[in-house]
Amino acid sequence: MVRLTGKVLDIEYRGVLLNREDARTIGVLDGDRVELVNEEKKTAAQAFVTTTATMLPQGTAGVYQVTNRRLELEGSEQIEIRAVGRPASIDFIKKKMDGGRLTMEETRSIVREIVDDTLSPGEVSAYIVGTYINGLDMDEIEYLTRATVATGDQLSFASRPIVDKHSIGGVPGNKITLLVVPMIMAAGLKCPKTSSRAITGAGGTADLMEAIAPVTFTASELQAMTEKAGGAIVWGGATNIAPADDKIILYEYPLKIDPHGQMLASVMAKKFAVGADLVVIDIPVGRDAKVASIDEGRKLARDFMELGDRLGMKVECALTYGETPIGRSIGVNLEVAEALSILKGLDTPDSLIQKSAAIAGIALEMAGKVQAGTGTDAALDLLRNGKADAMMQKIIEVQGGDPGVTADDLPPGDHAFTVNAPDTGYVIEMDNRALITIARAAGAPHDHGAGILFHKKQGQHVKRGDPIFTIHADRSWRLQKALEEGRRLMPVAVEGMLIDRIPSQHWRQPMN
Amino acid sequence: MVRLTGKVLDIEYRGVLLNREDARTIGVLDGDRVELVNEEKKTAAQAFVTTTATMLPQGTAGVYQVTNRRLELEGSEQIEIRAVGRPASIDFIKKKMDGGRLTMEETRSIVREIVDDTLSPGEVSAYIVGTYINGLDMDEIEYLTRATVATGDQLSFASRPIVDKHSIGGVPGNKITLLVVPMIMAAGLKCPKTSSRAITGAGGTADLMEAIAPVTFTASELQAMTEKAGGAIVWGGATNIAPADDKIILYEYPLKIDPHGQMLASVMAKKFAVGADLVVIDIPVGRDAKVASIDEGRKLARDFMELGDRLGMKVECALTYGETPIGRSIGVNLEVAEALSILKGLDTPDSLIQKSAAIAGIALEMAGKVQAGTGTDAALDLLRNGKADAMMQKIIEVQGGDPGVTADDLPPGDHAFTVNAPDTGYVIEMDNRALITIARAAGAPHDHGAGILFHKKQGQHVKRGDPIFTIHADRSWRLQKALEEGRRLMPVAVEGMLIDRIPSQHWRQPMN
Repeated sequence: MVRLTGKVLDIEYRGVLLNREDARTIGVLDGDRVELVNEEKKTAAQAFVTTTATMLPQGTAGVYQVTNRRLELEGSEQIEIRAVGRPASIDFIKKKMDGGRLTMEETRSIVREIVDDTLSPGEVSAYIVGTYINGLDMDEIEYLTRATVATGDQLSFASRPIVDKHSIGGVPGNKITLLVVPMIMAAGLKCPKTSSRAITGAGGTADLMEAIAPVTFTASELQAMTEKAGGAIVWGGATNIAPADDKIILYEYPLKIDPHGQMLASVMAKKFAVGADLVVIDIPVGRDAKVASIDEGRKLARDFMELGDRLGMKVECALTYGETPIGRSIGVNLEVAEALSILKGLDTPDSLIQKSAAIAGIALEMAGKVQAGTGTDAALDLLRNGKADAMMQKIIEVQGGDPGVTADDLPPGDHAFTVNAPDTGYVIEMDNRALITIARAAGAPHDHGAGILFHKKQGQHVKRGDPIFTIHADRSWRLQKALEEGRRLMPVAVEGMLIDRIPSQHWRQPMN
Repeated sequence: MVRLTGKVLDIEYRGVLLNREDARTIGVLDGDRVELVNEEKKTAAQAFVTTTATMLPQGTAGVYQVTNRRLELEGSEQIEIRAVGRPASIDFIKKKMDGGRLTMEETRSIVREIVDDTLSPGEVSAYIVGTYINGLDMDEIEYLTRATVATGDQLSFASRPIVDKHSIGGVPGNKITLLVVPMIMAAGLKCPKTSSRAITGAGGTADLMEAIAPVTFTASELQAMTEKAGGAIVWGGATNIAPADDKIILYEYPLKIDPHGQMLASVMAKKFAVGADLVVIDIPVGRDAKVASIDEGRKLARDFMELGDRLGMKVECALTYGETPIGRSIGVNLEVAEALSILKGLDTPDSLIQKSAAIAGIALEMAGKVQAGTGTDAALDLLRNGKADAMMQKIIEVQGGDPGVTADDLPPGDHAFTVNAPDTGYVIEMDNRALITIARAAGAPHDHGAGILFHKKQGQHVKRGDPIFTIHADRSWRLQKALEEGRRLMPVAVEGMLIDRIPSQHWRQPMN
């Protein structure tokens, strides 16, 4: 073991930088693992070694920011460094690669070491790819869920039931959480909702909510807010609830994979960790959604319910229509404005209202608040009598936003271009992936005004020249980018339209 | 695209460090990919972003060393930076994960991006794990071999044939290259040998050779030395021959995997790249060797020969005994001294001499230098008449070492401990893995004097108290470490010995 002066390196990275002479003394090379101990704070962290000949003097170790969140160095403090071996969990990762079944203990070891950053990126990826190719059975999924819960913070409420909902992602415009949570709360049920930000989408629920209130809270703050207001809608990434999942997703995203077992565990760990008793899961089904067919959706639903059963949570699932965007908007301000307008009495679009009420209604029935078969109507009542809106105001207020906010406070971007129907006919196709790409090109979710507003939806009749949708952007060059993507992708098809016509023709319309 | 002042960061890591404001302007977050262009040098590199608020002023980008080997910044030069998307090869990696077969073009794209460092560690690992679990067929292995050759340097000789040999690793003490290459050269055949350093072993051939001559050369230097002296034994890692393999192995090593297809491609790419026409492959078979059974060895041999056929190389394989260490020594100085002594006329150990001559003999027969069936004897003649030793002296000289070196110049470490037979009987087992662990604990391959010298080998009779082996170390604490491992691992078993006796008893012997 070697004692060095630790110094924080303000670089957002994990690891430790050693003078090459010190590395030699410790007996490590670039990429090797060491354990660092902050003697004063009694904290420890494992880190991978990078070396330098000149950037640090001998005797000083540079600790990168991500690693220092564990080590908690403040100025120049003494640290002890020693080389450490290969973590045990690599053998378990290998076992999964070789088609073996992981035990509870093996799973816990892997998840713990992912959370502690003691596995290299290559090793974490090997685990995820191993589970992707060889799969996880229900026992293994249960272990993974429990390990994911156990390695993070948990909520614990004195009064029950606690209700939670989840929508499987991939469908643009899915702002239903902003309607469902207030409806559930309006029935007197507690709902501590953690949401994600968009990774590949045009706006996650956390991105939407952030337009009207802060969303960054700890787990205990989420608990306190839920006890006070009845519910909250926060960004899960800040809570340290199921932190393993946040790390795993970083590897899944570039590979565009979401292994079945990992997905089940990811969703259910978050529900279990907030103390949910009753869970409603919205499974959009559509060619471009994560679930492509009704059969696949039913199978996934059964798996969610079995896993819920094993964890002591009651789960119901709703297969929903996921072929086209939900509601009439995609993008932060457009979606939040749409949700707030509905809470304040607007009665369109009907499809969005019906879907939200159906999901909330299932929760109401599960909780025994209403008779079976009457949940949707009860939820619609809570929307129409203003109780859901009052709950949304309580959520916004408890999170530190302005409860008086209305749709007018959430303007679409000034730079806009409307796409008109090139022919008369029915809107026969809306391409979710293309629409997301266009909304992101326009600046969503970073630019709050960016997005797409639909004047017509799939199945509706349009006359040549009728506006179909409008792209909004906060910045002119972003609008141009979005238009380029639109010309390339042709996201909406009208029956009778010549599919093989040069795409750019469809866009040569005057600016609205 | 953004223009910044590029500055080299003396940190042995790949990537670019951006001030957080500059990162925002470019539109990237930590971990995102950017392309860097050095306008002056007309060089470009892709890099992953790390960010800082304070370590670099706005307008300056820090380029880490590994990335700068491509970008070639010298002082403070203008660089252009732009965000870049997901590399195409990720889709091909995904295809392999999904069980698909990769085309030549897809394989080339993956290998090119591994060599160019444009894939993240998680993505490279996904590729390797995908090939490990789903396998590669012979077409895919051929593509991988060709792509590995094409992304590195190649040798091209005017005169033919060029001979090469390879030993599948995993067996300690396998110093036969130091005997086989000079024997082949002594028959008038050219042999440009690239060797590896130990990763998990006690000494690779490059580690051994480095004890008597420099081994770090470029591909063209290897070619020039081979043309001048008839052959050379260099470290492959410095040549830029098959560089993809050097990168891939870094991911395989921690996972302790060596996927069949990757291994075939790795070996044969290096042979193909040095321009070999005739290749002899030594496949040690043993419980702890990479190949555990004769059947498995035969199958591997057939695959090597088929791949050779496809690449236009004639390949023969020899299954060899891999249950116990080769020769009487493990460790750099001990092994080199053993090889030099044999070249200079020592006629033991016979097993090592026979094995080396058999491998060299196959090459002589393949090249038509001798009649079929007479290769081993011809090789032994070249050893006994001193011609092989003369060739070794030429190799050492052309690489810049002292050709007058003898075994006396390669002393074993001063700190030594001899293990004696606890009982009378036959040596029935020598555990390769345990012996490697002990040799490494003693300091091998870093400490040249560290290693193990055997007084008895498997099958030999010992009397109680007879010395079986001696552990050598350059440093006292290293010897202690090795003894601790020895007590734990019991690497040699003598028939009649009580297996369940407390292991440390066997070690309570006076120091020899």
